Amino acid sequence: MEYETPLFFHVMEYAGRADRDVIDMVSGNPDWEPPQALRDGLHEYADLEPDQFQYPPSHGLRELREEIAARRGVDPEQVVVTNGAGEANYLAMARALERDRGNEIVLTDPVYPYYPGKTTMLGGQQRFVPTDETGQLDPADVRAAASEETAAIVVNSPNNPTGAVYPEETIEALVEIAETYDAILVSDEVYDHYDLSGTFSSALAVDSGHRIVTNAFSKSLAITGFRVGYAIFPPELVEDAKSRHMLVNVAGSRPSQYAVLQALRETGPDYYEQNRQLLRERVETFTDALDAAGASYTTPQGSFYVLARFDGYPGTLENVERLIDEAGVAGMPGEAFGNSRRDWLRFALVTPRVEEAAERLATYFD
Amino acid sequence: MEYETPLFFHVMEYAGRADRDVIDMVSGNPDWEPPQALRDGLHEYADLEPDQFQYPPSHGLRELREEIAARRGVDPEQVVVTNGAGEANYLAMARALERDRGNEIVLTDPVYPYYPGKTTMLGGQQRFVPTDETGQLDPADVRAAASEETAAIVVNSPNNPTGAVYPEETIEALVEIAETYDAILVSDEVYDHYDLSGTFSSALAVDSGHRIVTNAFSKSLAITGFRVGYAIFPPELVEDAKSRHMLVNVAGSRPSQYAVLQALRETGPDYYEQNRQLLRERVETFTDALDAAGASYTTPQGSFYVLARFDGYPGTLENVERLIDEAGVAGMPGEAFGNSRRDWLRFALVTPRVEEAAERLATYFD
Repeated sequence: MEYETPLFFHVMEYAGRADRDVIDMVSGNPDWEPPQALRDGLHEYADLEPDQFQYPPSHGLRELREEIAARRGVDPEQVVVTNGAGEANYLAMARALERDRGNEIVLTDPVYPYYPGKTTMLGGQQRFVPTDETGQLDPADVRAAASEETAAIVVNSPNNPTGAVYPEETIEALVEIAETYDAILVSDEVYDHYDLSGTFSSALAVDSGHRIVTNAFSKSLAITGFRVGYAIFPPELVEDAKSRHMLVNVAGSRPSQYAVLQALRETGPDYYEQNRQLLRERVETFTDALDAAGASYTTPQGSFYVLARFDGYPGTLENVERLIDEAGVAGMPGEAFGNSRRDWLRFALVTPRVEEAAERLATYFD
Repeated sequence: MEYETPLFFHVMEYAGRADRDVIDMVSGNPDWEPPQALRDGLHEYADLEPDQFQYPPSHGLRELREEIAARRGVDPEQVVVTNGAGEANYLAMARALERDRGNEIVLTDPVYPYYPGKTTMLGGQQRFVPTDETGQLDPADVRAAASEETAAIVVNSPNNPTGAVYPEETIEALVEIAETYDAILVSDEVYDHYDLSGTFSSALAVDSGHRIVTNAFSKSLAITGFRVGYAIFPPELVEDAKSRHMLVNVAGSRPSQYAVLQALRETGPDYYEQNRQLLRERVETFTDALDAAGASYTTPQGSFYVLARFDGYPGTLENVERLIDEAGVAGMPGEAFGNSRRDWLRFALVTPRVEEAAERLATYFD
């Protein structure tokens, strides 16, 4: 069986082997500080009694599930703490497919590459709906693509790679389409704390047995390596998801969950706002330089990414490698995200060297 | 879809809700100290720069894979660091099934309940081969059960729940049977550091493209909650397993992997020998008391468990709950491990109160 392995790791390895200084704008790894309470929590954990080093409850530490449930306004029983958003999306998509209400997964184009990879691995069929130039999704297009064969519609807002934030009407319409075809809307909201537009709307706001919301602390607490995420299921879908989680992973990492719980409890809104402000400044710096370079680009409403297009320089893996070697800037090829952004490159604004990177690009494409 | 959810969590919850003092002998959670270097490693990690809090390589920290590979005498490229032995077994069984060389998984009876659960979840068929009274597996019985339909044979030595350690001849014969039917031997060796008999033999000793070895640091370092395990694949099977790992979990927990690496590097053989010695003493204490109570039992050659049978008290979930309420001792029902041990109860020797538990049982069954 062949899976579509995401290219992220390949590009990062290529950049790591380069002979020259390379500015890494490949993956969505925040370069800012995690909350101090997270570090403190890990220190505290390291000195606990041995029983605290053993299996946490399979679905996550009780206090962590309660903390998440309280923040999201759901019952703790609906929450499964997962090994990052990666496992949360895997559980959600598997749960949708095993309902035997169809075998098709509706995805957007451009798409976050793990979704088609997971679809194939789970034996589902992919069906792509193009977004518009700004990355917005027209519910009418989704309705036209949906059918009795639809098991799930998987969306991501704030979006990777386009930076689009879907308005409330879009989310409501997507839930309604899922209900019409007895399918599941899987709403991946991992960038919810990086809504720069103030227009973000969670699918949890729409009460329905046909939507699963996935999320993680990877981006919001700047800890992609801790692997703590969660999925919120409708009550009638949660039990089988818990079983799958148990049979695949038994449980998640307890030191990670413990530290995240401390960080959630003790970190105020300032922390999140500071990081959004940093990102706003980087977006401005980077797009100003792209303007100077005469490139086309998207201005993100949220998430970490800018899609840029340079004339005569399509977003192939080959061109990304050339850019690493010749300009010292590593991005992701647009072709990794589907057909519609083949001419584009994606740059993650997770380096303090955003200005320098933009200058290098301006010089290179001059 | 219905999975066979392991009963462990149910019994632990029942015991936790009991009105009286209950000695917990349910799950295989070590109650002894993890190595000091593990705690030190976690403290050290907590103060690292933010880039160390981001995604580790998908297949595990490079130094950890190298450390494992050096210890096991394999190429680091064959090692996938997993979310505990749970994910390692999931990846191994999935890899065996997706080769399309048959859909049947040969398991032992008694069996570790996660194996049939995973088999069902992955769409495979279960086929059970009974072990003898002592838990030993006769390769002739496996050969008789194997066929062109066999995708994998899954074994566990030192064994949970029987305590049997399979001799070298058994492991060699099992690999040969896997080769004969173009199947995969999955050898789960998570209790390898708790071989009390000196007869343990790893499947890695038999060079073959038809065996996958799974393991974890959960038991050997007394950290079931850290979720760091690994699988060692033949070179021709490893790439697809890495893809599945990436698509399901993206990567494992970095603080956990970092701390485990420190512990591996700095913990000498004394640590492991001390824990084996503790276990030997507990086996003796517990089985002496069982003798006094007139119970039948198995003396484990390895792992953490004693199977015991009390006349007229079959190993049902109902009887386990009665034992919690009336005797204050929590074990696992034999029926959780298949058909052959329905009259038995399993007790995990992972409490300092082994002697007290044995006395309670002796009094209760007197």
